[in-house]
Amino acid sequence: METSSREWFQQKYSEYKVAVDKYIEGISTRDGLPEDLRSSSFHLILSGGKRIRPVLLLSTLELLSGGYEDGLPAAASVELLHNFTLIHDDIMDRDDYRRGVKTTHVLFGESLAILAGDYLFSLVFSEVSRNYEGETARMLVRVLSEASEKVCIGQTMDIMPEKYVKSVDDYFEMVYYKTGALIEASMVSGAIVAGGREEWLRDFREVGRKIGIAFQIADDLLGLIGDPSKTGKPVGNDIRNGKRTLPILYALERMGRDELDLFNRYFGREAGDYLEAVELIRSKGGIEYARRTMYEYAGEALSILDKYPDSSAKRFLSELIRYIVDRDR
Amino acid sequence: METSSREWFQQKYSEYKVAVDKYIEGISTRDGLPEDLRSSSFHLILSGGKRIRPVLLLSTLELLSGGYEDGLPAAASVELLHNFTLIHDDIMDRDDYRRGVKTTHVLFGESLAILAGDYLFSLVFSEVSRNYEGETARMLVRVLSEASEKVCIGQTMDIMPEKYVKSVDDYFEMVYYKTGALIEASMVSGAIVAGGREEWLRDFREVGRKIGIAFQIADDLLGLIGDPSKTGKPVGNDIRNGKRTLPILYALERMGRDELDLFNRYFGREAGDYLEAVELIRSKGGIEYARRTMYEYAGEALSILDKYPDSSAKRFLSELIRYIVDRDR
Repeated sequence: METSSREWFQQKYSEYKVAVDKYIEGISTRDGLPEDLRSSSFHLILSGGKRIRPVLLLSTLELLSGGYEDGLPAAASVELLHNFTLIHDDIMDRDDYRRGVKTTHVLFGESLAILAGDYLFSLVFSEVSRNYEGETARMLVRVLSEASEKVCIGQTMDIMPEKYVKSVDDYFEMVYYKTGALIEASMVSGAIVAGGREEWLRDFREVGRKIGIAFQIADDLLGLIGDPSKTGKPVGNDIRNGKRTLPILYALERMGRDELDLFNRYFGREAGDYLEAVELIRSKGGIEYARRTMYEYAGEALSILDKYPDSSAKRFLSELIRYIVDRDR
Repeated sequence: METSSREWFQQKYSEYKVAVDKYIEGISTRDGLPEDLRSSSFHLILSGGKRIRPVLLLSTLELLSGGYEDGLPAAASVELLHNFTLIHDDIMDRDDYRRGVKTTHVLFGESLAILAGDYLFSLVFSEVSRNYEGETARMLVRVLSEASEKVCIGQTMDIMPEKYVKSVDDYFEMVYYKTGALIEASMVSGAIVAGGREEWLRDFREVGRKIGIAFQIADDLLGLIGDPSKTGKPVGNDIRNGKRTLPILYALERMGRDELDLFNRYFGREAGDYLEAVELIRSKGGIEYARRTMYEYAGEALSILDKYPDSSAKRFLSELIRYIVDRDR
């Protein structure tokens, strides 16, 4: 991206983000909430985040309808839904930090963290049902509730990887459930608010699904070979944590017994540095395969967008897809 | 109730319950769910329960429209919502048993129990949005999501009683949020499925709210002076557990310093028997006040029903209200 183009993209991103953040802040200051529930529910969501799901929703809506204001309650809802899943995931994964701040259960205790997630989840559906009319609301609720069913399925697979994530095929299933479904739902929600034409729903379901998987593979690559000064995580971090990411699973399926023995000295263990293990994955083609697959998904998403007329929202969405796969953090 | 009348009531109750149970069983056997998530999500709901919320929904619908079949997806949804809150509450309260079986987190671990609750909560909204048309679905989602916001508020108050439940006034607020709101939402949902006439919504919101509070006070009385052979809990059980129920709060507000000292030897503590403490509450008028208040709420609910034409559903609902306050378990 040229500088002026990048500036334009960042400015547009920021415009969407500021609008959503303002809307979320409005929700967080409503009356009638016990202070303990308010602070625990909004701690994480007000502490940062890229807001990528709301931005996808709003730019899809703008591409299809020419404006995005009508999408703000839905955009806030997908971010609330995402944060609900993060709060509960952090309890399950016993993570102490996220977005550079302490996780909700560490700060407020586990009971309030469970309740905070449940409360955000309730808000998802009360926002949608208060702000959209009959059939639009019904369709949004259906898409968002089915996505959250899928997130639960994906998280079940993720907490029991030895049972549910044994192969590259399992990986694609798990990633669709855990990450792809909500990104898909965000774009479909934009299409629903735009009027819900059947063709739009089909196209943006496809685009969202592909972006969601590309997004996760980008994360996988950053967790393996990202620049530590940018990701804040050491090289090989996902190897230390024993995560079954795409490059790792691909390489595992191709290792002989000796290579497996070597790899298992690093996988899920504390070991000085992980360069030897990273090189093993690279030599088995895992990194190359993951990168190629990611670009394929992103390219397919871009080619679906191609059939829509040019507009600044379309240009933005295309840049966003490129940003998702080329980001360095 | 005469014997024939009681038989008729029990038969009608069972008709509703069997229909809902069958519907829930259908949900529990759908394809595409990892076995661990299926068994943890449906363990509690398939292990029993009175199904009082679905029965209130279906009988309200039948009173207003003459039939109840259309209400089954909504009736299953309120029961799913109720069970979601129970699974998460049991984690927070560290309860090991419910309905005579081990709680979900004890059987499946805490992570799967959190996910099971989240999954049931997702199903609430996907069921409603798949089975009702535009405006009906929107109204149901709004009522159910606002009720679950309230349940979260009530549970926050309940886990921090020393901060949020200091007086009889606090009690009524907490009980409305924690118990009343979902019973209210169940009856309002019945009125929505019946066609959602404004007058119906208003009336059944009132009836539901009053029944909800009466229902909780009945629980309070059983937890204090219920027959141990029927409730399965010893006399004074709520005193042992330090629960701020209506008779206890009423009496506490009227105790002198010496009486408070005496009561605090029992309240929230392990102490052979609790007869002395129960008698103290009785002598301060706590039991009499709670019983009178419960009958007042139930009576007000019955008098709102009075204005509707006689029907077997109306007769059933009136009997149900009497059953709720006169039950012995």
